Amino acid sequence: MDKQKLQTLKGFRDFLPAEAKKRQYTIDIIRRTFETCGFEPLETPAIEYQEVLLGKYGEEADKLVYQFEDLGGRPVALRYDQTVPTARVLAMYNQQLPTPFRRYQIQTVWRAEKPQSGRFREFLQCDADLYGSASPLADAEVIALSNLLYKNLGFSKYKIFINDRNILFKLMASAGIPEALHFRAIIEIDKLDRKSIDEVSESLKTIGISQENIDHLFHHLDEEQSPDNLKKVIEYSQKLGVEEDKLHFQARLARGLDYYTSTIFEIKIDEYKAGSVLGGGRYDKLIGKLSGVDMSATGFALGFDRTIEAMEQFKLFPPIQQRNSVLVSVFSPELSDESALVVANLRENNISAELYPDEGIKLDKQLKYADKKGIKWLVVIGPEEAEKNSVILKDLETGRQEDIKLEDLVNKLMKSSQ
Amino acid sequence: MDKQKLQTLKGFRDFLPAEAKKRQYTIDIIRRTFETCGFEPLETPAIEYQEVLLGKYGEEADKLVYQFEDLGGRPVALRYDQTVPTARVLAMYNQQLPTPFRRYQIQTVWRAEKPQSGRFREFLQCDADLYGSASPLADAEVIALSNLLYKNLGFSKYKIFINDRNILFKLMASAGIPEALHFRAIIEIDKLDRKSIDEVSESLKTIGISQENIDHLFHHLDEEQSPDNLKKVIEYSQKLGVEEDKLHFQARLARGLDYYTSTIFEIKIDEYKAGSVLGGGRYDKLIGKLSGVDMSATGFALGFDRTIEAMEQFKLFPPIQQRNSVLVSVFSPELSDESALVVANLRENNISAELYPDEGIKLDKQLKYADKKGIKWLVVIGPEEAEKNSVILKDLETGRQEDIKLEDLVNKLMKSSQ
Repeated sequence: MDKQKLQTLKGFRDFLPAEAKKRQYTIDIIRRTFETCGFEPLETPAIEYQEVLLGKYGEEADKLVYQFEDLGGRPVALRYDQTVPTARVLAMYNQQLPTPFRRYQIQTVWRAEKPQSGRFREFLQCDADLYGSASPLADAEVIALSNLLYKNLGFSKYKIFINDRNILFKLMASAGIPEALHFRAIIEIDKLDRKSIDEVSESLKTIGISQENIDHLFHHLDEEQSPDNLKKVIEYSQKLGVEEDKLHFQARLARGLDYYTSTIFEIKIDEYKAGSVLGGGRYDKLIGKLSGVDMSATGFALGFDRTIEAMEQFKLFPPIQQRNSVLVSVFSPELSDESALVVANLRENNISAELYPDEGIKLDKQLKYADKKGIKWLVVIGPEEAEKNSVILKDLETGRQEDIKLEDLVNKLMKSSQ
Repeated sequence: MDKQKLQTLKGFRDFLPAEAKKRQYTIDIIRRTFETCGFEPLETPAIEYQEVLLGKYGEEADKLVYQFEDLGGRPVALRYDQTVPTARVLAMYNQQLPTPFRRYQIQTVWRAEKPQSGRFREFLQCDADLYGSASPLADAEVIALSNLLYKNLGFSKYKIFINDRNILFKLMASAGIPEALHFRAIIEIDKLDRKSIDEVSESLKTIGISQENIDHLFHHLDEEQSPDNLKKVIEYSQKLGVEEDKLHFQARLARGLDYYTSTIFEIKIDEYKAGSVLGGGRYDKLIGKLSGVDMSATGFALGFDRTIEAMEQFKLFPPIQQRNSVLVSVFSPELSDESALVVANLRENNISAELYPDEGIKLDKQLKYADKKGIKWLVVIGPEEAEKNSVILKDLETGRQEDIKLEDLVNKLMKSSQ
């Protein structure tokens, strides 16, 4: 490789250990929460036949799908989302899967979008969906799950906004807006959280809706009550553990995607500016359209990169200093064996330990290595220590060090981690 | 999607929940073991510039790399292994990373191989490598790690075979085999574990080595002693916890890859027939060749699919019946609230619980659902139970059921999981 060729493609990222560990920490909590709520993992291939993936997302989106021919000349494409592959799975393995079916999927997707701040061409999607139930209990289950996710990630101040799309459709009909314009109007109304009413009114006019209709719409939006089905969803969500002050009915909530059929919701974190971190709702017709097998569906996608960004903002990651990690240094080549034995002993007790993997390196340099890596404890075994079966244990956070008997080392480290 | 088009590409796999959970169980143990030994995660993009990936694996391998043009007409390719992307990372972020650097990488790779039993076009790679130390301590660290991996996965009967490639090179030289044939000879010798000496002799003759040279080679192979460096690697590995009866010097061990420079090793599980499950060694020249930055390296790749297969063979996966999972059934629409409250309570105590997400479904059907999913406990709250604040708790494994006070439910379930 020439030096100047050493680069990644725009929109693609390397994750070095510090970043990769944060991602893994987050994924572990998400996964555990999914499983606590009875959702089970599903994995599908990164590469599929083009005919499975294309023509499902709309023309504009299809342009963003990575498409190519494989070595056998087959037209293939990279995973663009997780809903279409899941629809394929639901149709193919219909008999094997339980009904209702709760599945989660945490995999990478690829979209050839224009790279810009906060938008990537390769990113992780975290989806949870419940298939095969049209009941408000099912909506409540996915809302309760989404609430538990952000609670478990450590957030305390966030809100779940909830609506039923039928409110918007009904209002538009009663405002006299032609049905053909309903979905385009929804896309504009969805922008109300970052645009003023005047700006959105202007956009609505541009797509051909009269000022009178727009006034009617906005007037009634604010006084709209949640319909019976949504009331049930809200009530069940609360019974399932969502605190009352977290859940907010918002008649103007629209969500951008066209496939939602009734309940829609999203989570916003207070004082996090980049937008909602999770969004979802009920989409009872999509699976049938995609797979030919009719199936009710409700679920959500969690924005992984935004969630990580918000966790950074609120300092929700554990300190880099790894609570109980140990570097056992190598004092001299003759004392490598002693150090190796200590490492084996620590690992046997599930304490994260490593041997400095080189002999004849100055202690100073080994210490710097430990510091750079955020290791908490340094163990040194010099000739004196070897003689009397002890070690020097240095706390790299505080700088304090002590002589400690070999047989007490494990206990001391296990206590300190509690 | 037409019904007949619902298929995955050959060599690609869906993992339904039962399978996906086993994979996740295995990955979790691997990841935890890597981290116990001080190895840190690294992630690189699935798609890279072709010039980063091509020309590194040899002509034959290059043909198996998925290559295409992205929407901007850039020649790109899919990740074929994790060593070349890591070499790029080592060169790009040289200053940021600690030295020595222990990294692990668990990501998907794609190879357009002819699909056949046990060989896939998309599969997971699990690599751990230690960069920046030429010491036998470093080799011992990766060998100790690989041993701990299979121990932690639950295997008891396996062997680590170890050799130094220099033995083979020296022997070939002393047997008078021309240097130009050394690597081709190594590839043939590597087949000794599945072919007889006669068969391998035949192949060696075919590539142009005389019978006399072959006899000399095999004669001395068996009496060869491990050289000093390898003795140290073996000694340190033992100090680091590898039991003596697990580690076997084998002068005929060759390993197929051409880049190993001295220590090589592999793990074989007794009575598992498909071959070694892990292989690695020292490759001190490769990183310099790939990235322009010279760096010693030692490490291994774990064969994930084979490891899963061997775990199946030895029944090392926990039972499907999920120890502490609960389905809270919905007796009738009027009693949904009561069931929802119980679910919330269980989840608060980190017990995996789900609400049957539909009303008006017969209890019988809800029970069948729980069975199909391998759920351990069924909770029923009928009108009587609701009245007296109790629930019926049914153990779906034994069929036994009992009436239990609501306030005792959590305790009972937490105890049963111990």
